[in-house]
Amino acid sequence: MIHILLIISSLFTFSAHAAVQDFCVADLLAPESPAGFACKPAANVTVDDFVSTGLRLAGATDNIIKAAVTPEFAAQFPGVNGLGISIARLDLAPGGVVPMHTHPGGSELLLVTQGFIKAGFISSANTVYVKTLQKGDIMVFPQGLLHFQVNAGGVASVAFASFSSATPGLQILDFALFANDLPSSLVETTTFLPDEVVKKLKAVLGGTG
Amino acid sequence: MIHILLIISSLFTFSAHAAVQDFCVADLLAPESPAGFACKPAANVTVDDFVSTGLRLAGATDNIIKAAVTPEFAAQFPGVNGLGISIARLDLAPGGVVPMHTHPGGSELLLVTQGFIKAGFISSANTVYVKTLQKGDIMVFPQGLLHFQVNAGGVASVAFASFSSATPGLQILDFALFANDLPSSLVETTTFLPDEVVKKLKAVLGGTG
Amino acid sequence: MIHILLIISSLFTFSAHAAVQDFCVADLLAPESPAGFACKPAANVTVDDFVSTGLRLAGATDNIIKAAVTPEFAAQFPGVNGLGISIARLDLAPGGVVPMHTHPGGSELLLVTQGFIKAGFISSANTVYVKTLQKGDIMVFPQGLLHFQVNAGGVASVAFASFSSATPGLQILDFALFANDLPSSLVETTTFLPDEVVKKLKAVLGGTG
Amino acid sequence: MIHILLIISSLFTFSAHAAVQDFCVADLLAPESPAGFACKPAANVTVDDFVSTGLRLAGATDNIIKAAVTPEFAAQFPGVNGLGISIARLDLAPGGVVPMHTHPGGSELLLVTQGFIKAGFISSANTVYVKTLQKGDIMVFPQGLLHFQVNAGGVASVAFASFSSATPGLQILDFALFANDLPSSLVETTTFLPDEVVKKLKAVLGGTG
Amino acid sequence: MIHILLIISSLFTFSAHAAVQDFCVADLLAPESPAGFACKPAANVTVDDFVSTGLRLAGATDNIIKAAVTPEFAAQFPGVNGLGISIARLDLAPGGVVPMHTHPGGSELLLVTQGFIKAGFISSANTVYVKTLQKGDIMVFPQGLLHFQVNAGGVASVAFASFSSATPGLQILDFALFANDLPSSLVETTTFLPDEVVKKLKAVLGGTG
Amino acid sequence: MIHILLIISSLFTFSAHAAVQDFCVADLLAPESPAGFACKPAANVTVDDFVSTGLRLAGATDNIIKAAVTPEFAAQFPGVNGLGISIARLDLAPGGVVPMHTHPGGSELLLVTQGFIKAGFISSANTVYVKTLQKGDIMVFPQGLLHFQVNAGGVASVAFASFSSATPGLQILDFALFANDLPSSLVETTTFLPDEVVKKLKAVLGGTG
Repeated sequence: MIHILLIISSLFTFSAHAAVQDFCVADLLAPESPAGFACKPAANVTVDDFVSTGLRLAGATDNIIKAAVTPEFAAQFPGVNGLGISIARLDLAPGGVVPMHTHPGGSELLLVTQGFIKAGFISSANTVYVKTLQKGDIMVFPQGLLHFQVNAGGVASVAFASFSSATPGLQILDFALFANDLPSSLVETTTFLPDEVVKKLKAVLGGTG
Repeated sequence: MIHILLIISSLFTFSAHAAVQDFCVADLLAPESPAGFACKPAANVTVDDFVSTGLRLAGATDNIIKAAVTPEFAAQFPGVNGLGISIARLDLAPGGVVPMHTHPGGSELLLVTQGFIKAGFISSANTVYVKTLQKGDIMVFPQGLLHFQVNAGGVASVAFASFSSATPGLQILDFALFANDLPSSLVETTTFLPDEVVKKLKAVLGGTG
Repeated sequence: MIHILLIISSLFTFSAHAAVQDFCVADLLAPESPAGFACKPAANVTVDDFVSTGLRLAGATDNIIKAAVTPEFAAQFPGVNGLGISIARLDLAPGGVVPMHTHPGGSELLLVTQGFIKAGFISSANTVYVKTLQKGDIMVFPQGLLHFQVNAGGVASVAFASFSSATPGLQILDFALFANDLPSSLVETTTFLPDEVVKKLKAVLGGTG
Repeated sequence: MIHILLIISSLFTFSAHAAVQDFCVADLLAPESPAGFACKPAANVTVDDFVSTGLRLAGATDNIIKAAVTPEFAAQFPGVNGLGISIARLDLAPGGVVPMHTHPGGSELLLVTQGFIKAGFISSANTVYVKTLQKGDIMVFPQGLLHFQVNAGGVASVAFASFSSATPGLQILDFALFANDLPSSLVETTTFLPDEVVKKLKAVLGGTG
Repeated sequence: MIHILLIISSLFTFSAHAAVQDFCVADLLAPESPAGFACKPAANVTVDDFVSTGLRLAGATDNIIKAAVTPEFAAQFPGVNGLGISIARLDLAPGGVVPMHTHPGGSELLLVTQGFIKAGFISSANTVYVKTLQKGDIMVFPQGLLHFQVNAGGVASVAFASFSSATPGLQILDFALFANDLPSSLVETTTFLPDEVVKKLKAVLGGTG
Repeated sequence: MIHILLIISSLFTFSAHAAVQDFCVADLLAPESPAGFACKPAANVTVDDFVSTGLRLAGATDNIIKAAVTPEFAAQFPGVNGLGISIARLDLAPGGVVPMHTHPGGSELLLVTQGFIKAGFISSANTVYVKTLQKGDIMVFPQGLLHFQVNAGGVASVAFASFSSATPGLQILDFALFANDLPSSLVETTTFLPDEVVKKLKAVLGGTG
């Protein structure tokens, strides 16, 4: 019996040794590579690396867009690093809007869990795909395309957006255009928006230039 | 003005022409390739290809596992074809169980939207990661590893599982071992399960041999 | 000698038979897959499938943007299908502008071959990266991010943009917002642009709604 | 002549400088990334990083499964790191069994080099594919699916399994279920196996709970 | 009991339906895509699609190179299509040579199963990695690099080469240079080989021009 | 207003935090991974990481090949790291030759910007694809295949080669065969080239053995 246990033990050793790369929990303090964060040593990984309670509560919607986006990407949820998936919670108070945006690095699958949300995206061919979704409905937004979600029912609405990447990125159109130091003249030249509009939105969103 | 419109029109043509491959809605009747289903012609695509209402309602849980899994993979939800993402709804009545299984082709991110679910997976190193999740909690299961979900609260529970593939696959352990014509002797030899157990489960699950 | 030739002949046969998938010249009339167009039979492929003279001449810049973009993506240049690369020619007359846009499916590497071009992109973190480039300079724009190019020298300028995909796609911001039937109210809600601006740009660009 | 050599020398420098990323021999002590181990500096790489003699000898088969699996994955054979391939040797004494298992991260191609081996896998559709192989035969097992190999000839048999990943992983079903601290009650609930069987196998394989 | 069977039956249906894309056995007569051959319908797939006996016997080595390469790529072994792996058998009579060649589409892992083979590759940095291998030894050749194998023991030798692609391709240097209609003058200009050598090898290998 | 700015500020924080992995500018001093160089911290990245002036001037062509290849791969142009694209400048004086070579890690798209260049590649099936290109013409060379470019017009010619990888590699045939310590006897055995030719080219190119 002892002999058997020793043999089993050696089989274990083999198995454990071969088991690298089932997962790669992010070590957020180590340098990143193009494939994602470096891996935390497996010996330090616990179940809590694969679980997050960060989406239990609604995000704060007492802001200008009456909406909140709470991401659980690799930077917030290290367990998804390298696994090609992540998620975010969307809270939309009545009148709430997730403004026009893109995810440069992944496709999105939206699931409505409360209320009513009108969602849409525009393809490279400039075709518009819009639909009002209710609880339980899903909609997919192909990678990199402009899309949006707005509260469509006058009641607080909630959705969860899954992504085909642990680091899908998020580029909010108005922030990209108006909330940084991109000179107004360049914004106007490249978007055909009038100067007064650009200046006003820059003022509201804290942009300069 | 007409001149301008003609010019714009030509720009449109360019843009529309260059716009292939934003998405590839599955044509389920055409031959598949290793990358997924063939694409439906873009001209025939509508917003309803990107939306599904198939997860609005609970799946039927009046079965032996008191649970239902309703997939929205590429075969059920053609809009996700080629986009590297899909989803499924899990309904777990009190006592319900999603039995030990794997997804050969993708990682899973579980979101609990109702009730309480105990979920876990086992790594290649034979380490067990188990946690009881409540509404709003998320847990990630790395690709290809054995995992399970069981009702943990005595109340009907619901979760949505997102996948890092439009065709993650699903291999339920008991079905693979006992619900086909894999000879009992081979099952026993390769799993160390006793003959009477194998025979009994084969009988329950409709297997032969 | 005849024997040797027969042997060589058989070696040839082997070599030719094993040689599938060096390339996959697009058959534009066959169904697409998520990985690109179907392959033209190798026997029908000639060197002209791998060569294009379509970028020899400047595109017409007598339009509202005083610029032309001439793509050689897989739909225009079937030889690049499946090879992860493509190219486009940019012509910018004095005052010319390639408006704010994204490529949902690939990164871009710009090479200026004539004149002066001011180019820039905005990251997900809303940081702006802008530079004026001259002949021989290169600049890279990471996948999916908003970017633009404008004539910066008062002389006709030319650049060639290479892409990390045979089908990078192209989403021009103003076209996506104003040149289709996306309702003005939705544009305004999701971009914070004023109604009169949206209506005016829709009118100019041929949009409705 | 000296001039020519200088020129050649500069060409060399270019060539050597451009040559990064032909390979990435694993530095097993540095942090991993989702793409694999960090690379050993090229200057320290020798031919012995690309060669292994570790599979010359049969593994020890005097154990309960009368079989041995000797992996040459990236952790054992650093030269394959990042190259998408690895290998393992299987020794099966008469009566030997490689128990039901999966490779979460890669497909397997088995080559029998001695004796007779019955091998099989079960698809997601629960279809069984089984065949008895002899010396020189090959069989492929798609990624992530349950499969097994058993000695089928009463003589010592040998096979080599190649994988489509440098880190395919290995999850042995019985080890995952019975050789760790996964509570017996959870095993029983999620596999429908009877308590006495679970307890017995846990005892044999060193599991607890 | 009938009720239970019906329920199980419906679970089966689900499972079978969700099971697409475990594998994609090549339909060699259908059009290819950049990702490989189209898939044979799953209903027509049998275990023999995943098994090949084509490597049981030695290839004929009574030729000028005293060697034979017998591939089992997707075109010969449809079961590997889309799975990222394939294999070939190498037979090297005494004095046998697998001439300098590359695999444009994959890395190679060589396993010697009989005799002695001297194998080597040259990196982009022009470093040479050569080793004489014996039975049981393995060596890896990174993707796309020039490499070779020669009989090193004066006895018939055998090796099996696995590849990280179902369609790795094979470009034999001498065939590429001398066994086609590439004009001698171009060969000479681009290789610095003298005219008489180029002409002679073209004559031997059946090239023209 | 202050309240609004605080809210906006928090939105910014979110956006910036979620924005990892838009790009991964190479830190050339840190260890590489199979996916490329480690990333420079985003805070240290400037527009100059994404711009290079290194291709403004012609490379020196006063050498034996009357040609110069100036790469801007990740090692020279850190901004392309992880983005799947890079570029090189080719200068060909009259009589200039870019000798037969391969890029093990990527496909190439050539753009002629001055003069006339005859370019060609050979497929795995030993088919030759050759064409003389003029200013503005493009030609694509599939990954890993032997190809070449020669001045075809008697005037200084320039081309830019884009690649489908940030680290495509470069293996120059004559350097691989004759400019290192690969023993002459092995070169001769594996290429069928005569001893005097091998010895002579080794002498010219600085090889030994």
